[in-house]
Formats: sequence, structure tokens, C-alpha cells
Amino acid sequence: MRIALCGGTGDLGRGLALRLTRDTDHEVIVGSRDPEKAREHATEYEDELDSRDIDGDINGFDNAMATDRADIAILCVPAYHLADTVEGIEGNLDDTVLVSPAVGMHREEGTMSYNPPSAGSVTALAAAAAPDGIPVVGAFHNLAAGRLADLDATLDWDVLVVGDDGDANATVEGLADGIDGVRALAAGPLAAAPEVEGLTPLLINVAANNDDLADLGVRFR
Amino acid sequence: MRIALCGGTGDLGRGLALRLTRDTDHEVIVGSRDPEKAREHATEYEDELDSRDIDGDINGFDNAMATDRADIAILCVPAYHLADTVEGIEGNLDDTVLVSPAVGMHREEGTMSYNPPSAGSVTALAAAAAPDGIPVVGAFHNLAAGRLADLDATLDWDVLVVGDDGDANATVEGLADGIDGVRALAAGPLAAAPEVEGLTPLLINVAANNDDLADLGVRFR
Repeated sequence: MRIALCGGTGDLGRGLALRLTRDTDHEVIVGSRDPEKAREHATEYEDELDSRDIDGDINGFDNAMATDRADIAILCVPAYHLADTVEGIEGNLDDTVLVSPAVGMHREEGTMSYNPPSAGSVTALAAAAAPDGIPVVGAFHNLAAGRLADLDATLDWDVLVVGDDGDANATVEGLADGIDGVRALAAGPLAAAPEVEGLTPLLINVAANNDDLADLGVRFR
Repeated sequence: MRIALCGGTGDLGRGLALRLTRDTDHEVIVGSRDPEKAREHATEYEDELDSRDIDGDINGFDNAMATDRADIAILCVPAYHLADTVEGIEGNLDDTVLVSPAVGMHREEGTMSYNPPSAGSVTALAAAAAPDGIPVVGAFHNLAAGRLADLDATLDWDVLVVGDDGDANATVEGLADGIDGVRALAAGPLAAAPEVEGLTPLLINVAANNDDLADLGVRFR
């Protein structure tokens, strides 16, 4: 498949680009509002893979161009950029599955709390912003981006997938399952997204309160 | 230590009574509003352990008597019984740590959602109901009670502990760590309880949406 990483120049985009290219046969395109920045990051990701003797072409374009003919577009942007990112790419969405990994959180006295938008969840916000007929799937919310982006780190994590379109969910579950050390789990419809997103502040709180733990994910057992 | 399981006649109480007696040296007392029911369940738990050649005395009393001289009292009751359960035992709380494992949830169209009380979390509700000076710790929220109560089942779970009294948290972490296959993790102050409680509906949704999974807990990795 062709996978566009909109806003793919941050840690989450970097981690997904590196691992999808290393572990799967999917074609990865890095998107950014600034096409020059996207190209620079794509080249840097290729160089990182090349230094490990891993072949893989990663191209960089502006978000709209990156999404052109993509099977899946992952919105690796903060919640407050979701709507304008979707607006910028909607002309190029055609049988594309949109994936929302963002979470709303706030920190008070060192403790992270889940802070959903009025839509109920950030995934629901993405679904509201998407054009009619374009499925939105919530996934990749609970990955510690730093560890994801470090190819020396082994993963042992579950990725939770939520959404109202069963075929789109299955497509994204297949994508996540392709990453070494990751298992995709169905977590229900879009209405179940708040509990999935709320796991992210919990991961941060647990890492902050236990000396021997950092960059956490979870396994369901 | 002496551990009172208030409302300890349900699955959570049964699981904690059986496993604490089997895996630790703590003394377990089963409490119920109805002392006769408490005695019956205590005897049944003893019989279950005896059938596995495990020695252990488990006594049953009404909740107030069960809590007398207890080091820890675990409130194994639904959220809507928390306040009256605390009221029923408060005369016997003396250097006792109260533990709140309850979660507020609602189900809509087959999907579970976290439904906290106006206090912010059920753990905060318990803290508000407790007499001054009695520490309240949130723990054991995310254990699948059915698997916990089945001594043939092996556990591979983390127990998240929240609360504002560091000594009380440490006492409860030690208690949880004593159960075979359980690791206690500090998850922050009382303000972090909603994210801990919100994990429970997520566990139920994941179990409901994946054919090969049931009675889930989590490991942080």
C-alpha cells in the first residue's frame, strides 16, 4: 500500500516512516505543510535506514501531494491542526483511509489528564472534519514516539484500532500488525475512542512515577 | 497485615481473598452488610483453598467488624454503595488504609464508556467519603474479576496505584506485589485516578472485539 504521513516530520512520523519501511513492503510518503521540510526529513529517514543497510525509497511532498493516490493517510499532527490538515488534503482523498493518532491532554502539577474536545474524542473530531464517504480510523494513539523512532529499540506493544467502518479498521489493523513487535487489537467503534485516547496520559503518568520505566506502551493479556 | 474485604462476597472479593491467602501471609477477613453471608463466603473460600491443599483461615463478619484492627480495608462495592459502606465502617477505622477499586461505566450499543462521578473519579468519591486523616488509595480497578477468582488461571498483570498519601500508596503497592503474577505500578496522585479507572471499559471493549481475548488486564512495557 501507499502510506502518506501527513505532518510526518515529527517523532511519530519519523518512527512510522522508519519502521514501516524497514518491516513492511508499503511505500511511505512524508508530508508536511512545507514541501522542502518534507523532502529534508524523507532524505534523513532514508539516510538513517541506509546506515543500517536497509533499502527503501521515502519521498517527501506537501501534505496534499503526499496524499495523492495514498491508500492510507495518517494525520501525524496535533489535535488543533487536524481540521486544517484535513482541509488541505481533501481534494486528493479518493478511497483513502484517514488515520487519527492524536490525543488531547493537559498537565497540571506534573500529572497528565485526558482532555477530549467537545466532539468526545480527537478521533471523532477527525471524523467530523473528513469529507463524506472518507472513513476515519483511530490508531497509533498510545505509542511512545521516542522509542518508536529509535530503530535500536525493540517494541512489545499493542496498537488499539477504533472506527465505524469495519473494512477501514481491518486495513489499518493490517498496517499496524506489519510492524515488528506490534499487535493490532480492535477496540470498538468511534464511540470507544475516548478510552483509547485516555490511555496515553496514563502511560505518561506511569512512566513518570516509576524509576525503571520510560517510553511505555501496553500489552493486553 | 490484616486485610478487610468490605463487600468481599463478589468476584473481586473472592479473587483477592483466594489469592492473598494463597500467595501471601496476610490475614484476610471477608466483610458484608449481612454477617451470615460473609461467613458463608469465607467458609466457601476456605473450602476452595482446602481442595487445593492450601491452608488458610478466612473469617467473615459484617463490614464494620471485618474492618476492626484492619491495616487495609478494600471497598469491593459498586460506586453507588461507596458512601454508605464507608459510613458503616468509619467507627472502626484507625490507621487503616482504605482502598477503592470501583469504576463508573455505562454501556451503549455494546460499547463501554467511562462514566466518572462529579467528584472526577470513583476514587475521589471514596476519598471525599472517608473521615479526615484516613488515607484513600485507588487500586485493583483493572483486574478481570472472573480470572482473578479462578485459581487455575495464571495472571500476568500490572496493578495501578493512585493516591495522595505516599506511605499509604506504598503499603498498597506492597500488597499488590505479593500476588503471584501481579506487579504494582505507581500511577500518580488522586488527580490521576480518572485515567486509571478509564482503563477498565477499554479492557472490556478490547475483550469484546477480539475473538481470542477475554478477561483482560494489561502490562506496561
